[in-house]
Amino acid sequence: MTDVSGLVRTSDVTLPIRIAGAALAASPRLEQIAEFDKWFADSAARNLTTVTPVPLEELAGWSFDERTGNLAHESGKFFTVEGLDVRQPGGRVPHWTQPIINQPEIGILGILVKDFGGVLHCLMQAKVEPGNCNGVQISPTVQATRSNYTRVHRGKPVPYLAYFTDTARHRVIADVLQSEQGSWFYQKRNRNMIVEVREDVEVLEDFAWVPLNLVHWLLSHENVVNMDARTVLSCLPFSGMDLVGLLPSGDDDFRASLVRSCSELSGSRHGTDTILSWITEARARADTSASRIPLRDVRRWVRSPTGIAHETGLYFGIMGVDVHASGREVARWSQPMLRPSGDSLAAFLVRRIDGVLHVLANARVEPGYFDAVELAPTVQCTVGNYADVPPADRLPFLDEVLTADPSRIRFDATHSEEGGRFYHARTRYVVVETDAELAPREYPDHRWLTLNQLVGLLRHSHYVNVQARSLVACLHSMFGREWQRPNVIVR
Amino acid sequence: MTDVSGLVRTSDVTLPIRIAGAALAASPRLEQIAEFDKWFADSAARNLTTVTPVPLEELAGWSFDERTGNLAHESGKFFTVEGLDVRQPGGRVPHWTQPIINQPEIGILGILVKDFGGVLHCLMQAKVEPGNCNGVQISPTVQATRSNYTRVHRGKPVPYLAYFTDTARHRVIADVLQSEQGSWFYQKRNRNMIVEVREDVEVLEDFAWVPLNLVHWLLSHENVVNMDARTVLSCLPFSGMDLVGLLPSGDDDFRASLVRSCSELSGSRHGTDTILSWITEARARADTSASRIPLRDVRRWVRSPTGIAHETGLYFGIMGVDVHASGREVARWSQPMLRPSGDSLAAFLVRRIDGVLHVLANARVEPGYFDAVELAPTVQCTVGNYADVPPADRLPFLDEVLTADPSRIRFDATHSEEGGRFYHARTRYVVVETDAELAPREYPDHRWLTLNQLVGLLRHSHYVNVQARSLVACLHSMFGREWQRPNVIVR
Repeated sequence: MTDVSGLVRTSDVTLPIRIAGAALAASPRLEQIAEFDKWFADSAARNLTTVTPVPLEELAGWSFDERTGNLAHESGKFFTVEGLDVRQPGGRVPHWTQPIINQPEIGILGILVKDFGGVLHCLMQAKVEPGNCNGVQISPTVQATRSNYTRVHRGKPVPYLAYFTDTARHRVIADVLQSEQGSWFYQKRNRNMIVEVREDVEVLEDFAWVPLNLVHWLLSHENVVNMDARTVLSCLPFSGMDLVGLLPSGDDDFRASLVRSCSELSGSRHGTDTILSWITEARARADTSASRIPLRDVRRWVRSPTGIAHETGLYFGIMGVDVHASGREVARWSQPMLRPSGDSLAAFLVRRIDGVLHVLANARVEPGYFDAVELAPTVQCTVGNYADVPPADRLPFLDEVLTADPSRIRFDATHSEEGGRFYHARTRYVVVETDAELAPREYPDHRWLTLNQLVGLLRHSHYVNVQARSLVACLHSMFGREWQRPNVIVR
Repeated sequence: MTDVSGLVRTSDVTLPIRIAGAALAASPRLEQIAEFDKWFADSAARNLTTVTPVPLEELAGWSFDERTGNLAHESGKFFTVEGLDVRQPGGRVPHWTQPIINQPEIGILGILVKDFGGVLHCLMQAKVEPGNCNGVQISPTVQATRSNYTRVHRGKPVPYLAYFTDTARHRVIADVLQSEQGSWFYQKRNRNMIVEVREDVEVLEDFAWVPLNLVHWLLSHENVVNMDARTVLSCLPFSGMDLVGLLPSGDDDFRASLVRSCSELSGSRHGTDTILSWITEARARADTSASRIPLRDVRRWVRSPTGIAHETGLYFGIMGVDVHASGREVARWSQPMLRPSGDSLAAFLVRRIDGVLHVLANARVEPGYFDAVELAPTVQCTVGNYADVPPADRLPFLDEVLTADPSRIRFDATHSEEGGRFYHARTRYVVVETDAELAPREYPDHRWLTLNQLVGLLRHSHYVNVQARSLVACLHSMFGREWQRPNVIVR
């Protein structure tokens, strides 16, 4: 045998155990919760922000381009609101145009983690964003567009940024480009990073080391953990070994099936090669083309003093806001925001197959995706848009979710989407257990996957959409014990 | 323990062994070679094709759009020649425009494989393409653009297509979208598929079951195995287990290090997480933007009766050809082709690190890539472009390859690039062994990877570029014995 001392044999095998161990820890202690509550309330008090809707025409620094009608900042940075022309031959709507946010820069969403006494902690920030319906939420350690960290807006430097731009001295646990809402963003993606440090880190105002099980506990509460934090958390490698050995015996069946689902030794309904081939086929088949067009050329959307809206009032609108923040890098600014016409639903149907939990993923086309198709929740929609739709046109599985017996609902919490771009965008994240077996022929765009398979795909870009990533984080949060069902503990 | 009888535990563990076993088999027997030669010569004789250069203005069915100047087919299908505007702030050339081939359809490149007497065979086609410098080459079982198989050009149906479009009854070994030349194509990608059949398959004229070790043997010969075959072959899962056990003892050191490189148990210089983070960082850093523009707006390229060329004569040109083929789907057609200004070089420096072969991959930006950066050979260039360049501007590692001692050259064969779009595009594929250790700080865009790591990345899209994929196929071909060094057996 050759000397292989200069080689890396494998990733640190203790990492998934340490992550899962932290997640499996019992509910956070009351003193932890009280301490978090005080820190969070203090941050909220320090970071009072007022957000005032204003006409788009009056947004300081922003204007409509004379030629294209696109809405852009005078610096040429941040983002623009443009038009998108979408063609889906054979689709339910074969052709439409819509406004879209174009933000070609790749930002960094990074969480710093550290082991304290054997428990993984995340350095989280309490942060206000103008679109939040409730002020402060907890966000990643670093949440910075390239404009942020190259300081186009002349704000303060981004704290902790160097941990993510100069990683050589640290341990990179996850580092992957992931896309965001493909109906609202044109090919937007951010670099999702988790970096482990061993050294001492100064904890600045509005930052705190939060134990992973407390972060998970917070996910069962409404509008506390922001979208950027959820997408980064979903990239934690919750797999890679036989985690089942961690389970205390006599554990409740659902949770045991969840832990088994995260273990690559448990097997899966379909082999990963089969899943990859299914995704490749969906991408090759997707005949969707999306071209950027001048906002001026978007049809059936109207501009009024209150903003841009679809003539039916459906989908979303573009509005302007003036922001006055006391605790942010810049005290005052103005920006356009996208306001959805109603709350969204993102639901996974889940099923125990031979004792291993599987989620029903949907290979979904959205016009703004970087690569045509991503895996989405079983059901993802704005529920209001389906209120008057005849049964034949109902979305598959929507009624199963909306009428599920409460005993079948394993997770149910509403979270906010990106508060820097979206105004009061809320999504109800639901996990509903079913016994139904589905014929693949009947649902060619749905497949049962284990969490281990989703986590494997999450090491790479453009496989799992942002709503499904939030649900992956929520499912991982159910490793913990008492609070696995909604509303068992209410803050 | 739960009953998991309904679950797939893992992929077929015998597959990598069967692939490697077929590759490790001794050189093809003389009678196999003779039989192949006869079949190949017969096909060549049947498929005589004449290719006549014609002015672009006289290409039947093709014309320059009056408004954009783009060159397109009257059907709107096949492909167009358009312009590309490339900006690389801080790059050696920060801004340029160029013609580019736009072919947004995803085609299928598929090889059917079957086990005969324990040896994997590939169903290969002897096929002429107009750009080939030597007539017939061996190509995948199916090599079809969507225009081909939807029969836009009213040709015959594509043989064997159903094996790749309806895979349920067969075994899908690989199925992944892979990009092609990012300097010549705009975001082109094809579906690379390998499907294993157990049933009898009728062998049509110009097709033959070729044992994998004979396919590999052919890779050491010039211009026999076409680009599409090479890229599909690179996706064969040559890893996943400890292949070292297959090695007869006393084997030559280089080959043993190659086999170890394919085994995931051998370890690697950098962990795969580190490699993924390095690629993510390169993509986030790449500030390249490439926008399609009208061909009319491309600067410094001139149109003459012989085609479109750069004013220096460098890079490539666009020419027209009339094709008269006796053995293809359509007997006569006309098309534009891209003609490179000179032969290319694609070379991997390789190094044994603790007995495990590593290749030096380059994270390379090309404007037509789907996702900004892909892993390329250590050196990839048109050598002629560097003839008069002062030493300081020489490409890294180019001189190491061009002046390598012959005893260091482990593989050296010239192959053709896509003969359906490129006219006489040849690349010299070279593998050169080195002992040099490189400081990562000095070469931030180069990293040592094992073949097992490259094969792992090849399960996913947009990681390994088409030139590096050809080299992966060539390296795999060196599993075989006597012909691992160039020119040992000359046909």
